[in-house]
Amino acid sequence: MSDNCQDLDCLAGVRVVDFTQFEAGPSCTEALAWLGAEVVKIENPKTGDPARRVLPGKAPDDPWYFHMFNANKKSLAIDLKSPRGVHLVKEMLKKADVTVENMAPGTIERLGLGYDEVKKLNPRIIYCSIQGFGAGSKFEKGLAFDMIAQAAGGMISVTGEPDRPPVKPGPSIGDTGTGMLMAITILGSLIERQRTGQGRRLQVAMQDAMLHYMRTCFAVQARTGKAAARRGGKTVMGANAPSGLYQCTPYGPNDWIYVMTSRANPEHWARLMKLFGREELIDDPRYATGAARIEHEAEVDAIVTEWTRKHTKEEAMTLISGVGVPAGAVFDTMELQNDPSFEKRGIMQVMEHPSGPFKMPAWPVRVDGKPPRVKPSPLLGQHGAEVLNAWLGLGADEVAGLKREGVL
Amino acid sequence: MSDNCQDLDCLAGVRVVDFTQFEAGPSCTEALAWLGAEVVKIENPKTGDPARRVLPGKAPDDPWYFHMFNANKKSLAIDLKSPRGVHLVKEMLKKADVTVENMAPGTIERLGLGYDEVKKLNPRIIYCSIQGFGAGSKFEKGLAFDMIAQAAGGMISVTGEPDRPPVKPGPSIGDTGTGMLMAITILGSLIERQRTGQGRRLQVAMQDAMLHYMRTCFAVQARTGKAAARRGGKTVMGANAPSGLYQCTPYGPNDWIYVMTSRANPEHWARLMKLFGREELIDDPRYATGAARIEHEAEVDAIVTEWTRKHTKEEAMTLISGVGVPAGAVFDTMELQNDPSFEKRGIMQVMEHPSGPFKMPAWPVRVDGKPPRVKPSPLLGQHGAEVLNAWLGLGADEVAGLKREGVL
Repeated sequence: MSDNCQDLDCLAGVRVVDFTQFEAGPSCTEALAWLGAEVVKIENPKTGDPARRVLPGKAPDDPWYFHMFNANKKSLAIDLKSPRGVHLVKEMLKKADVTVENMAPGTIERLGLGYDEVKKLNPRIIYCSIQGFGAGSKFEKGLAFDMIAQAAGGMISVTGEPDRPPVKPGPSIGDTGTGMLMAITILGSLIERQRTGQGRRLQVAMQDAMLHYMRTCFAVQARTGKAAARRGGKTVMGANAPSGLYQCTPYGPNDWIYVMTSRANPEHWARLMKLFGREELIDDPRYATGAARIEHEAEVDAIVTEWTRKHTKEEAMTLISGVGVPAGAVFDTMELQNDPSFEKRGIMQVMEHPSGPFKMPAWPVRVDGKPPRVKPSPLLGQHGAEVLNAWLGLGADEVAGLKREGVL
Repeated sequence: MSDNCQDLDCLAGVRVVDFTQFEAGPSCTEALAWLGAEVVKIENPKTGDPARRVLPGKAPDDPWYFHMFNANKKSLAIDLKSPRGVHLVKEMLKKADVTVENMAPGTIERLGLGYDEVKKLNPRIIYCSIQGFGAGSKFEKGLAFDMIAQAAGGMISVTGEPDRPPVKPGPSIGDTGTGMLMAITILGSLIERQRTGQGRRLQVAMQDAMLHYMRTCFAVQARTGKAAARRGGKTVMGANAPSGLYQCTPYGPNDWIYVMTSRANPEHWARLMKLFGREELIDDPRYATGAARIEHEAEVDAIVTEWTRKHTKEEAMTLISGVGVPAGAVFDTMELQNDPSFEKRGIMQVMEHPSGPFKMPAWPVRVDGKPPRVKPSPLLGQHGAEVLNAWLGLGADEVAGLKREGVL
């Protein structure tokens, strides 16, 4: 085992009954698992979490998406349409600290596992629902996936080139962004419960969660009185020059670097011009102040581009960053995957899974120097016997009987 | 006071000494404040957090960005370049549960407040650093802002139109996205500390944090063997039709709707065609299966567009969502700001601030039905006397003396 990570048990003893699927819910419970909670995924014995196959019907399996959001969890495959299955899960909920679901609106209630039911079974439980739209919204029954939340939550409106159609931000902030806010609130509620002994009902809507990540855009709107606009490679905040994406050699799709000079630090411009060998421009009245550079932004951008186009993005980042100006090459997923620094530092780790080893991003926060260890995502139903024994005292015979009856 | 929110004290008694500025750090400590922690911002008495003025030098003030990330906090303005100032902050650190900083690399150590120093003063403290790049990375001394993290962490590479330059996702995921991961780890460490009595050192790099939100893109790469590509309004996952942004009347910059049909639910296509009055296309061999629709994606998109262009995005969302197909209008920040549903549900709240009321997104997770109340962001140094008295027992005379000496 690699020593770039560690087994963390911050949340030792915290039991999570996890009804989630796809990403918004699973990213939340996975964060708890990485911090040491015991997270038991409740899955349909026939298909499991639909995220186990992103391309259903295609062989071979494509387990990578599932691995990403279900590392370090256990799986109990149990039929929630059978009364015995529901009964067993209710017994588990009596012993759980947290339960999380992100089913379509009304589904968990139809299974007899809605908040009102579960609270009666266990008033100490933190009961969590993630929906697309908030209770009380006119779209409250609407289904959502990541892109729907990003559209309805404002993200797409501010992403893309001016005067062209909007585009979807590539990352799945609609899903994982929402899951993180629920994880924070769960942990806060667990701390509170140590004092009060009482559980809580937590609810978050993916559309609402997007506003949290859009606050700079709302601040721009407050200043300008207009909806925040798309600005291509520039930032919605605007009003810094140079600041933006600049092309690098050899001019491939991702041969770009983000360079930013801050008005809070007037030295950035001088440092950049010294690096470029253009000292004469530092005090040139066209460029000497932040306001002047904004006025001559096209010229300023041309000055930066003339230099960046002679360098690869890595060279440019090393040089610009090296003189104390914020710079970031536009790395693609393959470049990030193959950069040994991430694995060396435990930020990417190899999941040792029966279906084969899989290198993936780990929880990126270091605790006393090391991130938590990535453990395998569970096979469907892998931990059924173990969990039913540890949580409910069921013996091997009882488990075998449940399997024969098709409950497991 | 509005009854759409509540005072939450999940984290009552948790004391945070907050050295953060701009957004990545402040978004983290603000989450703790919303859950009831006492967060004391340590600010330079002359200028305060530079985020207090996004456009420095311009009058009037532009406090909106600062409000967003500093609600519910206290402010202690104290000179960390004076020995007396550092001494007082060290006394506070002895009584704190958590401290967070996101200064440029090396700065907090130069102030004499690095981890090794503070751990000696208080072995129970959770000491947190947010940097642009990870310790051990070749860019570890590099400065970063939101856009630099989004470039170097892969986000920009997957955002934009195919065959065009990349664009920056508009939301500030580089900042707030990082802050949320730190907040989760802080809360997990607080829970752990109740058992161990020991503090922790937590470190996160903004570049590393981006990988966490990029995991669907890495999963796509694992499937295809190629770097995840830009797909405009489509998703990086690909391979669903119809799925994407469709234009609506009256064809303004944000008159678009995201419509998604899932292969996990073949009913979506049939529901959509019934709504469009195009039942004849449901079983048309060109469109009857997910695979067939992907093969004829341009035609499928044209069928959807023909209908959406006759409707406003709100109408289209109501109708499509109403038949059980995931749909999200591309709302802009002004539309979201003016939609009364958010304020009614406490997802947006009005901060009552001395500089004027300000409506802003609140913490979007409801706890027993209501989100936590947004309280004012602090005036610079507003809570100096209060905090120094409550934490360190300093009297009014001592505080007055410190002010005269320029320490406060």
